[in-house]
Amino acid sequence: MGNNSIQVNLCSTGKEKPESDQLQFGRVFTDHMFIMDYSQPEGWHDARIVPYQPLTIDPSSMVFHYGQTVFEGLKAYLSPEGDAQLFRPEKNLERLNRSNDRLCIPPIDEDFALEAIKRLVALEKEWIPDSEGTSLYIRPFIISTEPYLGVAPSQQYKFIVILSPVGAYYKEGINPVKIAVENNFVRTVTGGTGEAKTGGNYAASLKAQELVANSGYAQVLWLDGIERKYIEEVGSMNVFFKINGEVVTPALNGSILEGVTRNSVIQLLKHWNIPIIERKVSMEEVYQAYKDGLLEEAFGAGTAAVISPIGQLTWKLEHLFINNGKTGEIAKKLYDTLTEIQYGKQEDPFGWIEKVKEISNSTI
Amino acid sequence: MGNNSIQVNLCSTGKEKPESDQLQFGRVFTDHMFIMDYSQPEGWHDARIVPYQPLTIDPSSMVFHYGQTVFEGLKAYLSPEGDAQLFRPEKNLERLNRSNDRLCIPPIDEDFALEAIKRLVALEKEWIPDSEGTSLYIRPFIISTEPYLGVAPSQQYKFIVILSPVGAYYKEGINPVKIAVENNFVRTVTGGTGEAKTGGNYAASLKAQELVANSGYAQVLWLDGIERKYIEEVGSMNVFFKINGEVVTPALNGSILEGVTRNSVIQLLKHWNIPIIERKVSMEEVYQAYKDGLLEEAFGAGTAAVISPIGQLTWKLEHLFINNGKTGEIAKKLYDTLTEIQYGKQEDPFGWIEKVKEISNSTI
Repeated sequence: MGNNSIQVNLCSTGKEKPESDQLQFGRVFTDHMFIMDYSQPEGWHDARIVPYQPLTIDPSSMVFHYGQTVFEGLKAYLSPEGDAQLFRPEKNLERLNRSNDRLCIPPIDEDFALEAIKRLVALEKEWIPDSEGTSLYIRPFIISTEPYLGVAPSQQYKFIVILSPVGAYYKEGINPVKIAVENNFVRTVTGGTGEAKTGGNYAASLKAQELVANSGYAQVLWLDGIERKYIEEVGSMNVFFKINGEVVTPALNGSILEGVTRNSVIQLLKHWNIPIIERKVSMEEVYQAYKDGLLEEAFGAGTAAVISPIGQLTWKLEHLFINNGKTGEIAKKLYDTLTEIQYGKQEDPFGWIEKVKEISNSTI
Repeated sequence: MGNNSIQVNLCSTGKEKPESDQLQFGRVFTDHMFIMDYSQPEGWHDARIVPYQPLTIDPSSMVFHYGQTVFEGLKAYLSPEGDAQLFRPEKNLERLNRSNDRLCIPPIDEDFALEAIKRLVALEKEWIPDSEGTSLYIRPFIISTEPYLGVAPSQQYKFIVILSPVGAYYKEGINPVKIAVENNFVRTVTGGTGEAKTGGNYAASLKAQELVANSGYAQVLWLDGIERKYIEEVGSMNVFFKINGEVVTPALNGSILEGVTRNSVIQLLKHWNIPIIERKVSMEEVYQAYKDGLLEEAFGAGTAAVISPIGQLTWKLEHLFINNGKTGEIAKKLYDTLTEIQYGKQEDPFGWIEKVKEISNSTI
């Protein structure tokens, strides 16, 4: 499918855009959305940009019953020159196809999907907020729409991209959070869907999250589902620990999501010649390092927060106060570097930035 | 909420009903559906029976992204006297609320939901097919509809009931199937969502099912996600083995769905004074029993098939041929007894049948 096969149907009048300082996450959506349908034997077809609108879907559609969904999350940033730019979008589309494979959803053409995202972002460029730390969140997702109650892969899907202007994650600068190690619930397990970005993983996480939030914790830290010993993720981010001068992060094992920010953090640390090791990390090891005074930093890494320092980690009855509850030096440097690259305020030595070309209405 | 608070809006002309011998599973739906909304502070409200119709839902609705869904499955049967009747529907609604709790969905009023189902079935009584083995499948489900991309329990939901006339599961009488023991993928794990009837569990199962179907197997047998030793379920059914005169089934452990048919099988076996034990059952034990000539029967139990005898069980490179590939005596007796009770052809000593009272259009 070529670039020209995206049909565009513009809305007549745009919605009012929220003030930059009033922005929340994922509550307001732009004027248009991208949709493409899948059916057999056509495959993916009828790619179109249309006014943002409700979906009309049969109540027997599989998505409502058997959770066959995948999604991605990335952002468009405004550079000081006023350019719209994306951060490693091809990684998100590669992962979308890996998720598709696990969920028995037909693959998408990654190049075409990236082109569709860029055209949609270009069309909605005025929706990218320009205050410090704000961005336009991009949510590509695929839902199974066949009206059939049999438990089987759907024969019909919709690939949709919606956009939402989002506020700064840290209103008052990067700030450490309290995290509780989860001992009862598990997010997923080896052989499950943990490395896929699919709805069921998030549905499974809600209960644990709700319980710790009641006790004042921001997120849970997930342990592995088998031995309940090894660290997997924190909330919906990957997690890093600096122990005795060395940064460690759980190795990908099939149940950990392969984060784009995780990958970028690892590349940056290597670039800076800071030791970074991907391996199994047990909670016992982190606790022992803390007791020995060697746990120097802990932080999460993900698209929403970029870097989220952990100031307190609670494990059973133990409270680990990390770096005196302050943001660590490496977390701060990673946060500053990543956001400055994302916003085009710093050189991009890795080729991570994908500029979105301007389009005039006449060329759409 | 009282009985009278269900608003009814009938369609003007009904759809054509399919011939009984042409019925498939879950492809055709009746003329009407039940819907009830949840929002705060109203709670569950606006219960209504309306013409079967597509849902109009925002693309940012949580159900499309984070899989916060639950569902149930039960059937309405036509008795020889022409009465519509349900089989233990209160067990499905109890389980729906247990699933709700795990998925952070607000509970429903079980009595009211049962009343709603009965009124919908009464209204659609002519859709219950009357050929041998056919029934009207009832699908209650709840979806999270808040238009918000934050990972948190939705503040808005829809509880919906749709009905689908379904054909006989066994077109040519009860017949054993081939099952493959799954060694790579897992369905869920202790601490996960396995005992909830939620979309993600089914999404997770598709890949394994697709792979074994290519090799001619009907379903997979799931092992536990931790040791990969203990038997959990078969496909989307519970599983029973008759070993040396004694029936065993995996004990409920948090990752096994508590099936209504499972519970009924256990009650029937006890009623017949056949030894039935709920405990951990390892695949090694089943294999050893087979080698020793003591594995007399194996069968699945669930709403769709009622009882599904297992004629061949493949574990790694071993093929276990059970009862010479024939339906076992106990499987047959359970199937006959359960279906005869369900269809009102046999006495119901357990009080399992709930009659659906006739309604005239003037009383709706």
